[in-house]
Amino acid sequence: MAEENVIFVGKKPTMNYVLAVVTQFNNNVDRITIKARGKAISKAVDIAEITRHKFIQNAKYQNIKVETETLQGERGESNVSSIEITLTR
Amino acid sequence: MAEENVIFVGKKPTMNYVLAVVTQFNNNVDRITIKARGKAISKAVDIAEITRHKFIQNAKYQNIKVETETLQGERGESNVSSIEITLTR
Repeated sequence: MAEENVIFVGKKPTMNYVLAVVTQFNNNVDRITIKARGKAISKAVDIAEITRHKFIQNAKYQNIKVETETLQGERGESNVSSIEITLTR
Repeated sequence: MAEENVIFVGKKPTMNYVLAVVTQFNNNVDRITIKARGKAISKAVDIAEITRHKFIQNAKYQNIKVETETLQGERGESNVSSIEITLTR
């Protein structure tokens, strides 16, 4: 099954997410999207780059999209940047 | 003069860089590249999104490139992710 998979980046260590991406690729998934918001954006880029350089050398960037999401919090609305990095091989 | 301009993102507040980008666009520059490394990558995305949403509504993403740079430090080489976000209007 070659379906699109999404990995949401949060507070876990970078290598946890790298392992998740690599595992998906090794399970014959051919397209994976890494999503992150706010300060986790830097980590998402690290995850994609470590995956490509150390583990899945033939993975390529299909698309990198950034946008602004509006979150509802206790003190009202706040805006946060987000990124979606799609890797294919 | 419509030449390509580059803004390097460092430790200053986000709005300092937004102001620099907006000033360039208002000086008839039509393409600006925002570059950042490591944890500043999240800030670079914020800078691009704030510019587009609050100040230069017709700015578009021309390209978003991520890669790995190798830095020489006291303890040897280290790898750091980087991003280049090119905005045009």
